[in-house]
Amino acid sequence: MASATGQKTDPGRFFEDYRVGQVIRHAVPRTVSGGERALYHALYPARHALYSSDEFARVCGLPSSPIDDLAAFHIVFGKTVPDVSLNAVANLGYAEGRWLKPVYPGDTLRSESEVIGLKQNSNGKTGVVWVRTRGMNQRGEAVMEYCRWVMVRKRDLDAPAPETVVPELKPALSAADLVVPEGLDFSSYDFRLAGEPHRWGDYEIGETIDHVDGVTIEEAEHMMATRLWQNTAKVHFDATFRPDGRRLIYGGHVISMARALSFNGLANAQMIVALNAGAHANPCFAGDTVKAWSEVLDKAETGAPGVGAIRLRLVATRGGEPFRLKGEDGKYLPEVLLDLDYWALMPM
Amino acid sequence: MASATGQKTDPGRFFEDYRVGQVIRHAVPRTVSGGERALYHALYPARHALYSSDEFARVCGLPSSPIDDLAAFHIVFGKTVPDVSLNAVANLGYAEGRWLKPVYPGDTLRSESEVIGLKQNSNGKTGVVWVRTRGMNQRGEAVMEYCRWVMVRKRDLDAPAPETVVPELKPALSAADLVVPEGLDFSSYDFRLAGEPHRWGDYEIGETIDHVDGVTIEEAEHMMATRLWQNTAKVHFDATFRPDGRRLIYGGHVISMARALSFNGLANAQMIVALNAGAHANPCFAGDTVKAWSEVLDKAETGAPGVGAIRLRLVATRGGEPFRLKGEDGKYLPEVLLDLDYWALMPM
Amino acid sequence: MASATGQKTDPGRFFEDYRVGQVIRHAVPRTVSGGERALYHALYPARHALYSSDEFARVCGLPSSPIDDLAAFHIVFGKTVPDVSLNAVANLGYAEGRWLKPVYPGDTLRSESEVIGLKQNSNGKTGVVWVRTRGMNQRGEAVMEYCRWVMVRKRDLDAPAPETVVPELKPALSAADLVVPEGLDFSSYDFRLAGEPHRWGDYEIGETIDHVDGVTIEEAEHMMATRLWQNTAKVHFDATFRPDGRRLIYGGHVISMARALSFNGLANAQMIVALNAGAHANPCFAGDTVKAWSEVLDKAETGAPGVGAIRLRLVATRGGEPFRLKGEDGKYLPEVLLDLDYWALMPM
Repeated sequence: MASATGQKTDPGRFFEDYRVGQVIRHAVPRTVSGGERALYHALYPARHALYSSDEFARVCGLPSSPIDDLAAFHIVFGKTVPDVSLNAVANLGYAEGRWLKPVYPGDTLRSESEVIGLKQNSNGKTGVVWVRTRGMNQRGEAVMEYCRWVMVRKRDLDAPAPETVVPELKPALSAADLVVPEGLDFSSYDFRLAGEPHRWGDYEIGETIDHVDGVTIEEAEHMMATRLWQNTAKVHFDATFRPDGRRLIYGGHVISMARALSFNGLANAQMIVALNAGAHANPCFAGDTVKAWSEVLDKAETGAPGVGAIRLRLVATRGGEPFRLKGEDGKYLPEVLLDLDYWALMPM
Repeated sequence: MASATGQKTDPGRFFEDYRVGQVIRHAVPRTVSGGERALYHALYPARHALYSSDEFARVCGLPSSPIDDLAAFHIVFGKTVPDVSLNAVANLGYAEGRWLKPVYPGDTLRSESEVIGLKQNSNGKTGVVWVRTRGMNQRGEAVMEYCRWVMVRKRDLDAPAPETVVPELKPALSAADLVVPEGLDFSSYDFRLAGEPHRWGDYEIGETIDHVDGVTIEEAEHMMATRLWQNTAKVHFDATFRPDGRRLIYGGHVISMARALSFNGLANAQMIVALNAGAHANPCFAGDTVKAWSEVLDKAETGAPGVGAIRLRLVATRGGEPFRLKGEDGKYLPEVLLDLDYWALMPM
Repeated sequence: MASATGQKTDPGRFFEDYRVGQVIRHAVPRTVSGGERALYHALYPARHALYSSDEFARVCGLPSSPIDDLAAFHIVFGKTVPDVSLNAVANLGYAEGRWLKPVYPGDTLRSESEVIGLKQNSNGKTGVVWVRTRGMNQRGEAVMEYCRWVMVRKRDLDAPAPETVVPELKPALSAADLVVPEGLDFSSYDFRLAGEPHRWGDYEIGETIDHVDGVTIEEAEHMMATRLWQNTAKVHFDATFRPDGRRLIYGGHVISMARALSFNGLANAQMIVALNAGAHANPCFAGDTVKAWSEVLDKAETGAPGVGAIRLRLVATRGGEPFRLKGEDGKYLPEVLLDLDYWALMPM
């Protein structure tokens, strides 16, 4: 893209710029500190004790309190935006997301994505790009990975369609796929300090939980959060960008808000270890009051001392009744913002 | 409150759930860092040099700059909300508040409350609960303590009234009750760097100070502050919670705003060591422009080198003339938001 | 200004209070941490890798990632407000600004200003005050310096006019004036991680760059930023202060926003080393959507390995076409917010 005194700003990649097998090293590595942690707690009602207290984390076998798993995800994700979704028409899905190593203040994260699938749409104007993104720390260790597919515009409508490659992705990760952080031990877990008495055995598959609390979102908050992850998509920041003059809230902001709200009923679902699937069902705007409910999808043991795994559906809504997801037409109800499927670790 | 697959979210305690002598260990310990300090300075016009500069703090005999005393208070207080005031109708008062040890980045705080009084109201629907709350660091040292009483709803109106116990609380702490931080020494205090030349001897009992500056409050700011202290009261965050669609601002946000504004005239009232009393006279909402004035209530020596104590009334208002507090009916004027009575340490 | 039980709040200096040669030590030193860095990234779309990643900074020969140069400027500048511009009618200009040493988390900054010029205006009501401000760290090392002149009101219109002294200030610093941080070495610079391939040689004098992105500014954001720098000018915070009920946005907020936006096209203009001139062409208010464009004014070599210097004009606008600055009357167009002239360091 470089050319002496040529176009200096990055127009982003278009569909025909991707090749299966292509590996993109994303820009702007990021060192995290207690500052990111404090901001995460200021922006979301996050209270999971493992991410709030160094002492609590040590009792659980970790060296200190990690940065929230979703903050790590947002940082890794944010770096991919200029290369993957700057010209995206839609964010179609996530799969095979795994957290592989906790991120601690002082760590420096960077991201890398491999193109694993391409499929031009029949309209010839857009195509679907599948990438597997990996976040790495300063030691080159992978801290997380996930697959994501987006619909991207073509620059040149006459550019030939690439050979269609649709990757086989697991509908959900199994307990065997989960990576439990080294040393994690819930056998001395303090339920009183964690905030709720409910342990792994207290949750039944199929059980649903209304998280009760709601948060009305402000423009300043979602922009500060999205900038903090160095996510540069215009649509989140520039009120003149959309015809309706509204700033679209970064989907990850809704994920973090819903996850934080889920503390009330899932205080012991401490660590997120896998992201099976996720849909941003409807756009979220400032002024919306976000609420959340969860459904227990599955449970499994992990082999780590006192550590169970629980698979949860996390749904974020803006008003409406809890536990309602789709209409008779099979489409998400208009008040549903997010439908997320993830695995968390919980004391047994 | 635990029961397999039973109600998972915490409805909070009701009046009949409290017993005199009961000790509640509050959830979600919190490790603080430079991040909380930076956010405190971004959310409030806080300029007291002792909390801004490690170098200034060392000259005053401390190892480094502590977290603002009010930030420590908010953290300790925030943890009590789910157990004490989730079903509170009103926050009735504070007494016997003392800061016992400065809090530094790296410290982990938790809270504990003892029920010291109970009195059912004649209407039989609510009752007053008195608690003495203690904040502790990772070494189990008490960093602060205060008494607070709130009016709490009953769940079951037929529940028998408990024996009435009204604790005897001091109307104000005396100089002898104050705990001066170990090593504090104002004999090399740099008034120029601190921002004002006025020392302890320059203030007279009865003197009043108009702090002049004003700050118009935004929704995003008070919510970020309140979340940072992990205070979960719905009324601060959910615009759909109150019939009028307004979010009530956490009273502690007004306390911190007024204290920060009081720098202009009280720049050398460096450390808060006691909270004698406090009333949230009227609710505060986004859009209000907060101003503050102070009155010198008392003065005392402390025995520490160069360290005097000054007892101040700090009043926050939204408009209106300074120095006016109550009407002829003895009620707070509608523009008065806060009436706080505290002790601070000042160079002599 | 001190007097027992006299006026306690600081009215600020008036024109007749200044003397040429007078040195003012400004109040409230400030220790910075990762918290200030995280907030800077939350408030501005800042992505220059050198300020985001400790690893990237080390590869460039620095011990770790410094605090953004503009954050250092804002902190140094903010301390001068109570002494220099509290009664200022207008901020007239900047000159001879130089960054002399990077600022790292843990450093404590304070400021000092020398009055270098005075000129009473013919109306006899105001005068121009020139100061040279120096920011120092805890080792007493100068981290930056700049000259600034402001129009200040007189308290007493009958006060005699001082002898007029107008300092000779360089219209722009030359390459020889620039201080390259000790150890800075761009010979192993990673362009891919930095975000753009364009190096020093790819930019031509006279070249213009439209930075494309825009950010709509919120009240909460500019107030948090301005407070973080402990800038106390009422006009930024108090909606009741101006007749029109609008809060004027701190000019430095626009500088940081424009600089951050300029990443898109100038990702490798890593370090700001000099501020030649700056004009806040029109006031900025919440709701404005800020965009930016740049023009290459000059280029120079520095002698440091792989390090070139580039002199840039950075213009911030609220809407309107890029590359338009002034009208036929020679006045700034109404949509122009900022016209800044600075030197940055870039890999060759």
